Amino acid sequence: MNAPDKFQQLLTLTREPFPQSRKVHVPGALPGVQVPMREIALTNGEVVTVYDTSGPYTDPAVMIDVRHGLAPLRSGWIAARGDTEAYTGRSRVALDDGGNHDAVADARLQALRAQAAGLQRQPLRAKAGCNVSQMHYARQGIVTPEMEYIAIRENGKREWTRDYLSSTERETRLRGNPLGACIPGIITPEFVRDEVARGRAVIPANINHPELEPMIIGRNFLVKINANIGNSAVTSSIEEEVEKLVWSIRWGGDTVMDLSTGKNIHTTRDWIVRNSPVPIGTVPIYQALEKVGGVAEDLSWEIFRDTLIEQAEQGVDYFTIHAGLRLPFIHLTTQRRTGIVSRGGSILAKWCITHHKENFLYTHFEEMCEIMKAYDVTFSLGDGLRPGSGADANDEAQLAELRTLGELTQLAWQHDVQTIIEGPGHVPMHLIQANMDEQLKHCHEAPFYTLGPLTIDIAPGYDHIASAIGAAMIGWMGTAMLCYVTPKEHLGLPDRDDVKQGIIAYKIAAHAADVAKGFPGARARDDAMSKARFEFRWRDQFALGLDPQTAEDYHDETLPKDASKEAHFCSMCGPKFCSMKITQDVRDYAAAKGLSESQALADGMTQKSAEFKAVGGELYIPIQALPKQV
Amino acid sequence: MNAPDKFQQLLTLTREPFPQSRKVHVPGALPGVQVPMREIALTNGEVVTVYDTSGPYTDPAVMIDVRHGLAPLRSGWIAARGDTEAYTGRSRVALDDGGNHDAVADARLQALRAQAAGLQRQPLRAKAGCNVSQMHYARQGIVTPEMEYIAIRENGKREWTRDYLSSTERETRLRGNPLGACIPGIITPEFVRDEVARGRAVIPANINHPELEPMIIGRNFLVKINANIGNSAVTSSIEEEVEKLVWSIRWGGDTVMDLSTGKNIHTTRDWIVRNSPVPIGTVPIYQALEKVGGVAEDLSWEIFRDTLIEQAEQGVDYFTIHAGLRLPFIHLTTQRRTGIVSRGGSILAKWCITHHKENFLYTHFEEMCEIMKAYDVTFSLGDGLRPGSGADANDEAQLAELRTLGELTQLAWQHDVQTIIEGPGHVPMHLIQANMDEQLKHCHEAPFYTLGPLTIDIAPGYDHIASAIGAAMIGWMGTAMLCYVTPKEHLGLPDRDDVKQGIIAYKIAAHAADVAKGFPGARARDDAMSKARFEFRWRDQFALGLDPQTAEDYHDETLPKDASKEAHFCSMCGPKFCSMKITQDVRDYAAAKGLSESQALADGMTQKSAEFKAVGGELYIPIQALPKQV
Repeated sequence: MNAPDKFQQLLTLTREPFPQSRKVHVPGALPGVQVPMREIALTNGEVVTVYDTSGPYTDPAVMIDVRHGLAPLRSGWIAARGDTEAYTGRSRVALDDGGNHDAVADARLQALRAQAAGLQRQPLRAKAGCNVSQMHYARQGIVTPEMEYIAIRENGKREWTRDYLSSTERETRLRGNPLGACIPGIITPEFVRDEVARGRAVIPANINHPELEPMIIGRNFLVKINANIGNSAVTSSIEEEVEKLVWSIRWGGDTVMDLSTGKNIHTTRDWIVRNSPVPIGTVPIYQALEKVGGVAEDLSWEIFRDTLIEQAEQGVDYFTIHAGLRLPFIHLTTQRRTGIVSRGGSILAKWCITHHKENFLYTHFEEMCEIMKAYDVTFSLGDGLRPGSGADANDEAQLAELRTLGELTQLAWQHDVQTIIEGPGHVPMHLIQANMDEQLKHCHEAPFYTLGPLTIDIAPGYDHIASAIGAAMIGWMGTAMLCYVTPKEHLGLPDRDDVKQGIIAYKIAAHAADVAKGFPGARARDDAMSKARFEFRWRDQFALGLDPQTAEDYHDETLPKDASKEAHFCSMCGPKFCSMKITQDVRDYAAAKGLSESQALADGMTQKSAEFKAVGGELYIPIQALPKQV
Repeated sequence: MNAPDKFQQLLTLTREPFPQSRKVHVPGALPGVQVPMREIALTNGEVVTVYDTSGPYTDPAVMIDVRHGLAPLRSGWIAARGDTEAYTGRSRVALDDGGNHDAVADARLQALRAQAAGLQRQPLRAKAGCNVSQMHYARQGIVTPEMEYIAIRENGKREWTRDYLSSTERETRLRGNPLGACIPGIITPEFVRDEVARGRAVIPANINHPELEPMIIGRNFLVKINANIGNSAVTSSIEEEVEKLVWSIRWGGDTVMDLSTGKNIHTTRDWIVRNSPVPIGTVPIYQALEKVGGVAEDLSWEIFRDTLIEQAEQGVDYFTIHAGLRLPFIHLTTQRRTGIVSRGGSILAKWCITHHKENFLYTHFEEMCEIMKAYDVTFSLGDGLRPGSGADANDEAQLAELRTLGELTQLAWQHDVQTIIEGPGHVPMHLIQANMDEQLKHCHEAPFYTLGPLTIDIAPGYDHIASAIGAAMIGWMGTAMLCYVTPKEHLGLPDRDDVKQGIIAYKIAAHAADVAKGFPGARARDDAMSKARFEFRWRDQFALGLDPQTAEDYHDETLPKDASKEAHFCSMCGPKFCSMKITQDVRDYAAAKGLSESQALADGMTQKSAEFKAVGGELYIPIQALPKQV
């Protein structure tokens, strides 16, 4: 199958809207602000609106050709600000796709590259003396269209949840416990601006990624998740990577990191960025290392800097930069059980040791800031010394680096450069809170972005679960974005199904955190599901679930008949034992007795209860000797 | 395929020992105490010993014929106490297998029943005036063989972990945070006795289940998990249920509940109990309801009592009894989003409402105690009013019932009857701690046994994950046993793979809790895994995992060659990027330089660091204007 056919097949697979769902757009006050949401029409006439990361792929009205990329919806906003200029850009060189691998490039890859070349735009950069970061605008008091877009997006169609939730969220117990987060009842554009200005939230949005549907990462917003994709020297192809992107955002990936380490890095990235409605992150040191033939010692600031500009021109929205892994911290890892487990971290450690020099990302940090603000690329300050096992959690190596990331955050903020902080990793439950506390303390509330953490080490094949536990907890405690872990973690590269499994596990963790924090309206979808359960609206249950098809398939396995989708019982209890049916009987009984259901019944019960109380200690029938048979 | 053939096939499948593993037995001081454990032989010569719930099924030296049941290893201990007597027992009646269904019984089922009849033992009961509960013995100051067995089992082969862990568990951060649990460094038989005597732990061990390998459920012991199996009116067969038992304990089920609600309840139970090395729990109201043709109103104490004796004679180790669902509480559920979701609870609610009488399980509670102590059946006081949605969590209906369970616990303890308390269900993260706090307060530290809890409601098909999050948290907080949830929860009956998925998710949750609580030695397996990871011992990683075959299969998908099992890299990073390999390079480099690895390197770094500090604010290269190209 040639590449276009393969994509055609892919799009046939993944453009299907979710059941009972349609894409709607909520307009903002600023020009061109049209915020996509997914409306789920329930069979009882109610409509539930949910946050939608899937972009135009689930909108049947949009024509998509991955060879041309998505529509550049932000272009007008960027141009209107008048602070950018188009320029020739860095010349592409063969080495960008991995110098060592060019020999193996076959005719098919050449064709793909030619197509990718057709996707390339002329890059923009900030005009001399300008800073195009959202943080810079925010600090000038400017509410950008991106900020308004985000405010609408975070609220969802809150009006439908308002009446709906009044009965439950009025109760204190259901309001959640924000654990220090300050979440307003309504997210306003001004609130978004303020959070970005103070650095407590970021909007990853490179001016060279106009296809982006703006989103925000911050403690006072919905918890986000990231999905990693990427080829490696061992396996995978460009087609698979774009397929994974579309697949990832379909299931709820809020951002996607392209962690390619093998051949065709540059070309893969062209395809991904041009076709992505979500922010794309990368770890530029991976490509830089490819450029020096995989020899860490041969890395240099110049090679790295060239890579940053290359990727910034392509439109990458955030860079993982391991600038906190300082030379004096490396020795702290020698007594660890698992040493350094961050790929980027270990590369830089090797460079530092070999040259006995301070990490060049640390010494050149402010030069990086200049690049970041010329394109609005967000720093994701990497935790190169994160623990790779529970035994190494919260050790001095990890904390020394974290404190350094805090210093660097303040430096980045001096340049109005947006910054998030990466966190572990492998952390037993009892050490998770300390991670959040230390991060808040040392990094001044810059958003935290953790990988899991995995709570135990003995679950290879199930690390999405071992880590979803830690992710849910740290999300509740204040982590703004959770980097997913797939079932293949520690074992191999995730395939299509692994990506989905990882994302669903992390949607669960993030949503559990939103509910626990009491994000307004977060429980609405749960409440709609519970109501559908109680009323045996099976199709609505499937439609409201994170994965409708799987839920329906599971139901089919036991009760395959279509009629059973209206059955007032389920296979778990059978028709006679259904507890929800009996509950309904209880209510019907109360109604038939002329009791106004609740209170009248309550009165009757209270009276009866009083009778019981009146007999006092005589409630129990006197103990009788067991009859002979017992 | 006829039934014996099917079992033969089953046993071929599930008797296979785990890779690199063998069953060992650690002898105790008391006669006949031989505690099984699984030893995993690592390729570096180390041996890791793990808790083993799989019984003789994974011991190739044991001949097993499910038609005859397992060896009655406790018979001698029970007889030696001299307080039991064999008796004729209750006569079996056709109704025991579900009166409504007899018409459909075919020749095959008749044959199975005949075989089951061959499994039946003459029942034992306490001699007149005797109490054969482990709690009664404990309160007399008697250390039973069961207690010694459990002490050895909980410790594991602690001696191997002691040296091993000295380097990590000496560190405060890795000791865990017991959150109020009081776990000694070594579990002694006397400690087991004391915990059982004060009601803080139970040993479910019916005198008619001598095949049982004793285990304990309590806050100061390893967190346990329960797997539910059972047929229903809609589907499944006896063969499938026994298959699920063997399968459940293979993956780590500490107890198994037989929740059958359909036909052949009695016969199914014969097969399960006689072939089970783990405690079996039931919900007797399910069978009682079958006996009255599924009409809740027709239930009576006499029918229920007869069912308790029937099941106690068969050897059921614990009964879920919904005695806390009192008539005055029922009206509290009418404003709920999901009403009453417990099957047993809804049956009793219907009975109470129909007759406008107090729950007969509440009024006859002390008569039940007499039965429980005659066989040593443990109460699992059911939460018939548990929330069925996050919206209903921690409401007054739930808490009113919980307080009643506390009253009943004290009553049971007056009879020296062992008691655990069932808990929810559906609880958002921020309300989990209150569940544990209220349970500890009102139920006097009787062990808590929760179903999940599920932290969100929108994950049908993935509720094992949504609930593993809540289970891990409440396990850490002090819950003694976690009832699993499978991916089919809310959708259908779990099949073989669902049972495994549910168990693995709950092994993860329970182990995460043990690690967080700091149960001595709990981290040893994790540490061995981390060491194997760091040293690229792939086969050891698989063998140490909760599911070795899946881990190996996943590894094979990317790097199928057998040689790659010795590869010093993995498919995630490829050979050049492997961070662990680079870490090793860092260590080798340090060694080659003649540095004694850690400290000398540290000194060098400190010196270098001091140099950096000396240059003060000059650490950063002065910011240069971006060159034209940027």
